[in-house]
Amino acid sequence: MKIEGTHYRSIALNEDGWSVRIFDQRKLPWKLEFVNLETMEQAARAIREMWTRGAPLLAATGAYGLCLSLRDNASDENLEQAYKTLLATRPTAINLRWALDEVKAAAQGHQGQERINAAYNRAKEICDEDVEINRNIGLHGLPLLREIAKKKGGAPVNILTHCNAGWLATVDYGTITAPIYMAHDEGIPVHVWVDETRPRNQGALLTAYELAQHGVPHTVIADNAGGHLMQKGQVDLCLVGTDRVTRNGDVCNKIGTYLKALAAKDNNVPFYIALPYPTIDYSMARGADIPIEERSAEEVTYIDGLDEDGKIARVRLTGSNAANPAFDVTPARLVTGYITERGVLQDIENQAPQARSLA
Amino acid sequence: MKIEGTHYRSIALNEDGWSVRIFDQRKLPWKLEFVNLETMEQAARAIREMWTRGAPLLAATGAYGLCLSLRDNASDENLEQAYKTLLATRPTAINLRWALDEVKAAAQGHQGQERINAAYNRAKEICDEDVEINRNIGLHGLPLLREIAKKKGGAPVNILTHCNAGWLATVDYGTITAPIYMAHDEGIPVHVWVDETRPRNQGALLTAYELAQHGVPHTVIADNAGGHLMQKGQVDLCLVGTDRVTRNGDVCNKIGTYLKALAAKDNNVPFYIALPYPTIDYSMARGADIPIEERSAEEVTYIDGLDEDGKIARVRLTGSNAANPAFDVTPARLVTGYITERGVLQDIENQAPQARSLA
Repeated sequence: MKIEGTHYRSIALNEDGWSVRIFDQRKLPWKLEFVNLETMEQAARAIREMWTRGAPLLAATGAYGLCLSLRDNASDENLEQAYKTLLATRPTAINLRWALDEVKAAAQGHQGQERINAAYNRAKEICDEDVEINRNIGLHGLPLLREIAKKKGGAPVNILTHCNAGWLATVDYGTITAPIYMAHDEGIPVHVWVDETRPRNQGALLTAYELAQHGVPHTVIADNAGGHLMQKGQVDLCLVGTDRVTRNGDVCNKIGTYLKALAAKDNNVPFYIALPYPTIDYSMARGADIPIEERSAEEVTYIDGLDEDGKIARVRLTGSNAANPAFDVTPARLVTGYITERGVLQDIENQAPQARSLA
Repeated sequence: MKIEGTHYRSIALNEDGWSVRIFDQRKLPWKLEFVNLETMEQAARAIREMWTRGAPLLAATGAYGLCLSLRDNASDENLEQAYKTLLATRPTAINLRWALDEVKAAAQGHQGQERINAAYNRAKEICDEDVEINRNIGLHGLPLLREIAKKKGGAPVNILTHCNAGWLATVDYGTITAPIYMAHDEGIPVHVWVDETRPRNQGALLTAYELAQHGVPHTVIADNAGGHLMQKGQVDLCLVGTDRVTRNGDVCNKIGTYLKALAAKDNNVPFYIALPYPTIDYSMARGADIPIEERSAEEVTYIDGLDEDGKIARVRLTGSNAANPAFDVTPARLVTGYITERGVLQDIENQAPQARSLA
């Protein structure tokens, strides 16, 4: 999507045809810093140190990291070594492992320059496929926004979102943002309530930034405010991403999602999940089975922001200790529908094989 | 309650019998700074600039402010002038107006030193009455905690709270903290989940501080985390304060309270309000009628904390604009009970005249 009027993907090959351009997302929204990756080690560092984040973008970065390594040394030995190094940057990232497997498999049938070409081709496909998935999520979600816009007769469609499931976490479009950008681009008036999403504030930092850059009207709110806004009729639709949906339709997403889903139910506000279809984990029966990551207490007790001198500074927020569960599970009964690239599902368990095709 | 092992009230007469000691609460938890008020102007400034906060404490500060003014000049003219000055510090603070009216009425029957004495006597009564109200809220709430403790057979009673309805907002004990301190002091193991309470973080700053100083085990959490903790059975009771309860039992409190009440209902966790009985506004039919204050966006977009040099510093949290509704309304249907100094009410509208007496 657009930054300062120019279209970018979150990751792209440079004009030289081999080096890879990303953003250092740790510095957003304060500074737009392009980073060129020219070695596998640089790609590994970008993943490890969270210059890039978001499952699809990590996968793409890993895929190109393997390509960069082969460009230096196309041997079987190096392929294996680079695969291991990149996998170890985020051992629990399923998408990263998948992308590394894909590029490795593509490379294994070839030697030398052909191997390098095959790897680059597969990495490019992985990126393009991700864009296509998100574009189709957008196309399937768009009618929901059109419908609300029609009912509201020109008044803005108010969408509430939590965390960042935007294009900065994918290669382009984003899951929840794809229908929003498409609606905005076709002239439907939209306005997004952006949960700041404590403790890591991905909403206030990243979602707000990308919406601002693309010109979509939005307002940041404390995570506490969404329920009140729904009570006052100021939210037409909740739209959030997910890290994993279980077979019964339970949704694991950033901590606090469950509270918004409860408020949506209590106020008859539709609550939609936008996700790539493979995010549905049919091997897991229900959300209660998902292990919830407990992250560092310092994410709660300290925060980064821009100080009076315009530098990124860290301040302490409390003298006490903190707990920091990073995700929660929203029960399927609170979800109105699941917007996937295959169509909008109302019932994961029973509707999966009959996903509606795109009209 | 205790700070560093010594018992304090949030406001008290000094040994000289006329000057007034408060804390500069803007500096908590980073610095415990005692402030002596020796003139009406100092008291007015302490209220206006939020050195003191919390309805009962503001009332007490205003009451003593009027006394300090009379000590300088006990004339009718000055009484009237000081009353107006103090009232103007917080024109919408109902308790402050009430306390000023009380002290003024007490003073009006006298002249000279007798007038001064009468004013000081009434101000002292106002403080003592507030302590007694909170102590009785504690006595009525304590059996709830005892009961849970009994069921849990020695495991800590986990209480979740939002914002600060502690002793720092009252003269002593606090509303929600009174039963907690009493339980802790009699050896019941309690642990408090402290919502940080964005945007002003009164939980992380003040509630956590006072619990720490009194030695009550507690853990700060992002406001997003409470629903997940309830799903996981880690909350036995929610206990929050209120700014106003309407005739039908709807509860106006700090933004985000409603979300926790929804989660409590969804997980069968008891949700109690602790409040002085006069907080019930029988003149207002229902919560939807309460006007909700929209506060400055900067409370969301900037935050204060302790920087690396140990100084209080402000950092910016987002490049976008924000909305900041300060309160929300929790419908009566989500409330288990109302702990008042007169007893625990289950149903404000029908039970009010038959408030249970203290056993």
